[in-house]
Amino acid sequence: MNSWGTKFRLSIFGESHGKAIGIILDGVPSGISLDLEKIRQEMARRAPGKSPLSTPRNEEDDVQIVSGFFDGKTTGTPLTVMIENTDTRSKDYQPELLRPGHADFTGFCKYGESHDYRGGGHFSGRITAPLVFAGAVAKQILKEKGIFVGAHISQIGEIADTPFDKVNLDKETLLLSANQEFPVLDSRAGESMQKQILDAQRDKDSIGGMVECGVIGLPAGIGDPFFDSVESRISSMMFSIPAVKGIEFGDGFNLGSMKGSCANDAFEVVDRTVRTKTNHNGGINGGITNGMPLVFRVVIKPTPSIGKKQETVNLKTMENIEFSVQGRHDPCIVHRAVSVVEAGTAIALLDMIL
Amino acid sequence: MNSWGTKFRLSIFGESHGKAIGIILDGVPSGISLDLEKIRQEMARRAPGKSPLSTPRNEEDDVQIVSGFFDGKTTGTPLTVMIENTDTRSKDYQPELLRPGHADFTGFCKYGESHDYRGGGHFSGRITAPLVFAGAVAKQILKEKGIFVGAHISQIGEIADTPFDKVNLDKETLLLSANQEFPVLDSRAGESMQKQILDAQRDKDSIGGMVECGVIGLPAGIGDPFFDSVESRISSMMFSIPAVKGIEFGDGFNLGSMKGSCANDAFEVVDRTVRTKTNHNGGINGGITNGMPLVFRVVIKPTPSIGKKQETVNLKTMENIEFSVQGRHDPCIVHRAVSVVEAGTAIALLDMIL
Amino acid sequence: MNSWGTKFRLSIFGESHGKAIGIILDGVPSGISLDLEKIRQEMARRAPGKSPLSTPRNEEDDVQIVSGFFDGKTTGTPLTVMIENTDTRSKDYQPELLRPGHADFTGFCKYGESHDYRGGGHFSGRITAPLVFAGAVAKQILKEKGIFVGAHISQIGEIADTPFDKVNLDKETLLLSANQEFPVLDSRAGESMQKQILDAQRDKDSIGGMVECGVIGLPAGIGDPFFDSVESRISSMMFSIPAVKGIEFGDGFNLGSMKGSCANDAFEVVDRTVRTKTNHNGGINGGITNGMPLVFRVVIKPTPSIGKKQETVNLKTMENIEFSVQGRHDPCIVHRAVSVVEAGTAIALLDMIL
Amino acid sequence: MNSWGTKFRLSIFGESHGKAIGIILDGVPSGISLDLEKIRQEMARRAPGKSPLSTPRNEEDDVQIVSGFFDGKTTGTPLTVMIENTDTRSKDYQPELLRPGHADFTGFCKYGESHDYRGGGHFSGRITAPLVFAGAVAKQILKEKGIFVGAHISQIGEIADTPFDKVNLDKETLLLSANQEFPVLDSRAGESMQKQILDAQRDKDSIGGMVECGVIGLPAGIGDPFFDSVESRISSMMFSIPAVKGIEFGDGFNLGSMKGSCANDAFEVVDRTVRTKTNHNGGINGGITNGMPLVFRVVIKPTPSIGKKQETVNLKTMENIEFSVQGRHDPCIVHRAVSVVEAGTAIALLDMIL
Repeated sequence: MNSWGTKFRLSIFGESHGKAIGIILDGVPSGISLDLEKIRQEMARRAPGKSPLSTPRNEEDDVQIVSGFFDGKTTGTPLTVMIENTDTRSKDYQPELLRPGHADFTGFCKYGESHDYRGGGHFSGRITAPLVFAGAVAKQILKEKGIFVGAHISQIGEIADTPFDKVNLDKETLLLSANQEFPVLDSRAGESMQKQILDAQRDKDSIGGMVECGVIGLPAGIGDPFFDSVESRISSMMFSIPAVKGIEFGDGFNLGSMKGSCANDAFEVVDRTVRTKTNHNGGINGGITNGMPLVFRVVIKPTPSIGKKQETVNLKTMENIEFSVQGRHDPCIVHRAVSVVEAGTAIALLDMIL
Repeated sequence: MNSWGTKFRLSIFGESHGKAIGIILDGVPSGISLDLEKIRQEMARRAPGKSPLSTPRNEEDDVQIVSGFFDGKTTGTPLTVMIENTDTRSKDYQPELLRPGHADFTGFCKYGESHDYRGGGHFSGRITAPLVFAGAVAKQILKEKGIFVGAHISQIGEIADTPFDKVNLDKETLLLSANQEFPVLDSRAGESMQKQILDAQRDKDSIGGMVECGVIGLPAGIGDPFFDSVESRISSMMFSIPAVKGIEFGDGFNLGSMKGSCANDAFEVVDRTVRTKTNHNGGINGGITNGMPLVFRVVIKPTPSIGKKQETVNLKTMENIEFSVQGRHDPCIVHRAVSVVEAGTAIALLDMIL
Repeated sequence: MNSWGTKFRLSIFGESHGKAIGIILDGVPSGISLDLEKIRQEMARRAPGKSPLSTPRNEEDDVQIVSGFFDGKTTGTPLTVMIENTDTRSKDYQPELLRPGHADFTGFCKYGESHDYRGGGHFSGRITAPLVFAGAVAKQILKEKGIFVGAHISQIGEIADTPFDKVNLDKETLLLSANQEFPVLDSRAGESMQKQILDAQRDKDSIGGMVECGVIGLPAGIGDPFFDSVESRISSMMFSIPAVKGIEFGDGFNLGSMKGSCANDAFEVVDRTVRTKTNHNGGINGGITNGMPLVFRVVIKPTPSIGKKQETVNLKTMENIEFSVQGRHDPCIVHRAVSVVEAGTAIALLDMIL
Repeated sequence: MNSWGTKFRLSIFGESHGKAIGIILDGVPSGISLDLEKIRQEMARRAPGKSPLSTPRNEEDDVQIVSGFFDGKTTGTPLTVMIENTDTRSKDYQPELLRPGHADFTGFCKYGESHDYRGGGHFSGRITAPLVFAGAVAKQILKEKGIFVGAHISQIGEIADTPFDKVNLDKETLLLSANQEFPVLDSRAGESMQKQILDAQRDKDSIGGMVECGVIGLPAGIGDPFFDSVESRISSMMFSIPAVKGIEFGDGFNLGSMKGSCANDAFEVVDRTVRTKTNHNGGINGGITNGMPLVFRVVIKPTPSIGKKQETVNLKTMENIEFSVQGRHDPCIVHRAVSVVEAGTAIALLDMIL
């Protein structure tokens, strides 16, 4: 099913080469003055076609509000937006050639012959555009509660950015990347990363990476011990972003080689408030926020569309063949994914907080 | 909320030191002859008190079926089981001393003064016993469809076990660990791991690790592109297991430093069936199974209860203090978590398949 | 929340005087060739402006398919439609004058000052147009399973139509009304009813009525004993139709004055099939279909918009005032509600059957 | 599925002749001091065996709290209760004889041969006992918010009780019936009703009736325009009570023969509060409470178990036969249903309000 959330519920629709894509947001409180310019900026962060690092598909992701908005404010009834698909070149696609790493094969397994394969259809990364809209709305509501969400590129290939300071993450650092085209904390690492991407592109190849996300201002006590733990809800949303293949909270996989005496975050009282001295647990104990910064990382696999020759199958003839993916594609989507990760995080948290 | 699933729905209840813990399974098909002996074996894999590697708390996890079972078969109505709590020593706990790494603080933040803190209350790892029951039922139903779930210890501290062969994972290897007290593929690695655990115990410390889980026999086409992707559903369930802090599918975090030409799994036709030559994506494309083995890893943080002196806070006096956790505890829970990871996986997949 | 259903899930959006109204249908199987002409006919049955019995608001309810439809077939991904609002006259509405019987007051209580009051906003009967679209899709899928849904006007004012034969309801009678502008079984009763409506209109008043709905071809065994009983699911959907204030299954409220020896439907074997001799229970025992025709009735209150002078309150000045509702309105909506009741029934049953 | 609710969620389990029946309540706020004596009284209102008007099956419905309750207060985690089945006589039942009006046939259609037919199994009216427990908890929470729920027998056979005053319903009248074994407003009508029941019993027959339910103290603004309208939620719960076959809000089916000028409830300002002068809509406009008393009626069909000879089918031999139901049964369940209707109402409203 293509909806998510209990109190702030999304329902997405659309295919890459159909008439339009969009989203319904249900549970949006009434009376919220949406900052449409800010929303447009968020959409632009994800949109393609701005630099040599991205696909030249050039769409403005122009959002039309269809319902739930009256006299500049949300009405409390479903807030619906549509984004028309304009720059589509469906002739680029041959459905019988299964593109490795893509959902062409699984799409046919699930939906049968009526599957809309064009441009990845409903599996397309383009469907994350409505998620970014939803995230922009969620961020505005969270901001009024003093909660801020930010992310940056944590790694591209072998090049790593400076990680967030999990204990003293401040608002300035957190939001630094919102205004960067290629959002990193360490600009020199950023330059090396961009070089890696251009190298991959030159080789008709693509490259993966990681995104680190942080949240500050969260009150302690959000989440549930089981099934609706903060980790369960955020991961459920993150794995809805195409290309995400892993997630880790706090020190994550490093905790596997740690001792309890190191991994436990000691409590201390500072200014009559309970905090932890370290933050190996990423701000979550027993599935529930403890008031420290929430920090996690996701890994984004390399874009499957590459110009290099690949082995695959012709589903019609059932023959093994070689081919290279034609059409426009990104050598890397990690930098574009940053705003999507932020959006998903904002959505998941707002659903838990409302 | 303490329930999970759409078609195979669980609702868990109980606290570590209350009268009983248990679970309702709704959506169990009628007419299934449960192998109660097999279920008892699964429960025993998770149960404590069997070796020096675990807590000496000695409870048999004796499962009583309360409803939904008649004349040796499931009736199709809710299948309910209860496990009484017998070996509880509540006097061991002082609620005002926040145990680092535990949910004591977040429990008070969420539930207030009425929080049942005894033995972790509803946050206790003991609550995973009903999950193992549910998993045992799910496994029996999956087995009849030719689907098998298995897991092993992937790492303890710095010591790694041989990983599953993601392409040619066979049933024998997969289920090898079901009969091992300390489930590994490489018994020599297993011995080193156990030594690490005993070392940690001797130091009044604890140690973390990882579990790798595999599933074979899954048809292609299970899952959804968004929100209910296989990764979303499994991760949502895995993060319901206390101490899990990360999950990665296929090559997981290694995909972040890979090129597309390497990460893409080439398709090939073998015996008129489409397969992939490699399995970097862990059997999932676009959130949907592709018929290859499903493989993922989770990281389990070190047990927070340690005998070593730790810094913390007395919530009553709001003073910084030092203390060491009394009571019985595991120096490592990774080997006990193996059956819980299998159970959660079986539950998640059955819910998607029914 | 504005969504409904588990396996065939609807999410509706839109306000009477906004840009557009619409619906997402999730869970529609792939590969279904929608009969668009048939869908247009269903929409026309509900649409206003066709006769003196309805509001002169003249909109074609022209449905645009936005996603989930490719090469003449459903794709299995969300099927989205939009209906633009064209003939709106917002100047007719003064939000501070609470129209008796309408949701003006409760809308302000729930949504506050940002409530979109124009033409009833999200409360408008117009929002049932997307439901009729969803019902038309559901009917096509049900029809392929041999299941047929039909309804007729059961009563207007004091005038009653011939009721359905609950035991031997045949397809011809059931579907008779689909082609009638004023759907009744007894055309003379229909003439009297229309006279009542025109009388009410002449008096600047409105009039209520009832709709009876029947379903044939349903297999025995659909539904659940509790919470998801057939009655629970259908009634939950019916009370989503504005103006429905009651529902009764089988003999309904008459069962309150009956003896068990009369109300019990005796079983008999006919052609090696178990049937009941009577059908006082409307085809449902213990919340589950028994294979007999499903029959129920709903009551539709008189349209609240009337030209007669009424007492009410000015919410701004908090004064008691007199006023009469201006603008266009229906003297009766029962005949237009027939297709909506059928749609809701088809939706509810398909969700239970899929 | 056997669960209900979003924020106050129930999951019921158990069969009439199994080991035990029970319920999990999830979403109960922490820190609530349950009045166990009051809960016991509510359970007693529904319990059988107290008078010649009910089945002599004699069970105390002794509730054991299994989880979620610590030091006299709710903990915020799932509150679970169990009621053991003690006085069961399974030999009374022959599963192949389909009892008319019961769910024997539909149970076999749905669950197949493994259906637990004994005493109605999971379909038994006995499963409403846990609902009454849940309702008692819900009532205590509602009471603290100034909301009160009460019901009375509205009709038995042809004899009607005085209806609630929908405009000026006061707490005293509303709660009058809580202390009556046979809850009516007009005691002389009550005597006639009881005579009708005893007459039916003497004839080895049974008799139906109606229950009217009222709620006062509800704030305006509860509910949703579609799908989660107050009517949708309450009716969904009411049709989970075995034997309920119809529901009407406010003037209900009488609205079908009314004019708008009569059915519309005029607004007026009284003490600076907006109220309605009449209450034909039962306190609900557009699916949302308007602050007036919420009033509705349900019809309860006559108990299907009767001693009279009936025609039916032997499902094994597929022969038409005659038989009379043996075992203990109620000549009428309307008076016992009163507390169940109140419970369901309290549950539904609490879920909407939390």
